Amino acid sequence: MGAESELEETINYVKARGIPVLLDAKRGDVGSTAEKYAVELFDRYGADAVTLNPYLGYDAMAPYLEREDKASFILCRTSNPGGADLQNLELADGRQLYEHVAELAATKWNTNKNVGLVVGATRPEELQQIRDITGEMTFLLPGIGAQGGDINKSIAAGQGGGLLISSSRAILYASDGDDFADAARDVARQTRDDANQVLRGLNST
Amino acid sequence: MGAESELEETINYVKARGIPVLLDAKRGDVGSTAEKYAVELFDRYGADAVTLNPYLGYDAMAPYLEREDKASFILCRTSNPGGADLQNLELADGRQLYEHVAELAATKWNTNKNVGLVVGATRPEELQQIRDITGEMTFLLPGIGAQGGDINKSIAAGQGGGLLISSSRAILYASDGDDFADAARDVARQTRDDANQVLRGLNST
Repeated sequence: MGAESELEETINYVKARGIPVLLDAKRGDVGSTAEKYAVELFDRYGADAVTLNPYLGYDAMAPYLEREDKASFILCRTSNPGGADLQNLELADGRQLYEHVAELAATKWNTNKNVGLVVGATRPEELQQIRDITGEMTFLLPGIGAQGGDINKSIAAGQGGGLLISSSRAILYASDGDDFADAARDVARQTRDDANQVLRGLNST
Repeated sequence: MGAESELEETINYVKARGIPVLLDAKRGDVGSTAEKYAVELFDRYGADAVTLNPYLGYDAMAPYLEREDKASFILCRTSNPGGADLQNLELADGRQLYEHVAELAATKWNTNKNVGLVVGATRPEELQQIRDITGEMTFLLPGIGAQGGDINKSIAAGQGGGLLISSSRAILYASDGDDFADAARDVARQTRDDANQVLRGLNST
């Protein structure tokens, strides 16, 4: 185990239990570098999915998207406050930048049906717009928990395609005492139960 | 040396000779993660400068920009073909996205006078526009060499502020034989001499 990094140890632990691994690497680099990063993330680390930054355009993402056995989640509308700086800019056609990214992802970049989008759970109304643009597509929703995203509104707004709801810090840092493992499990279970309760409510209406 | 990564070994070799190190990490992540990445790049690896992706906005860059002893180069107009996909989008005010990024960098993000921009040497006309927007600011110019950027046009278009001209693959892969070190040195010197010749021409007119 000595030669393994903490990241490798963690990934191997998770994968040995049959759980898919998504590396939130937010990669975005020119094609020749992207090819090597794709090998690093998918082959060296064995990730099943990654996150990508779209600012450098298609050829910076192609080496990941060409891997039909893997999934790529492209940053569309991120959950952080500064996300608005560029993503909410109004384009000449009246749409905002994140809407254009959503359309490119749905119409041009998803030829292998392995593209998803990262859409922050802190902005349910924009999540709904993105769903309308993309139709059925899986979204990765960070921002639940520490960042204050509303799980009820997010699930309602994201209906119509897959949703991977991610709570990170609220679970990772549920406790800094000796009970950290139990505390993290409790928060994770509660988050799952909250999500399932919302789904039951939606399905019963 | 065994515990050092190749990256650490390379950086330590370069820094021991008094040469500054710019890590082309293209980082862009939410604030809490950015804080840790800044520690990784600047403190663990000892980089003097980094490259940053602006898609996540200001708070994703703040932990780097707040380091007054370090420099950050923000991706503005990249040298790869797909750079146009987002960076050349026309905004509602008639400008293109890369021009907006240049203005944000010059007017809002550079409070510590440690911000530069990445501007591909493959697009001299856009380099000139970015210079007009930013005034005196240092640009990192990748794309000379393997990517076909024109060193004459780039230096002429970038006048008015610092230019860090980067040729990567043309030097790294100058030869795959035993003469690789000599071949790399020759290409590096020729690139330097070409740049100096252009500068002499500009200064004499």
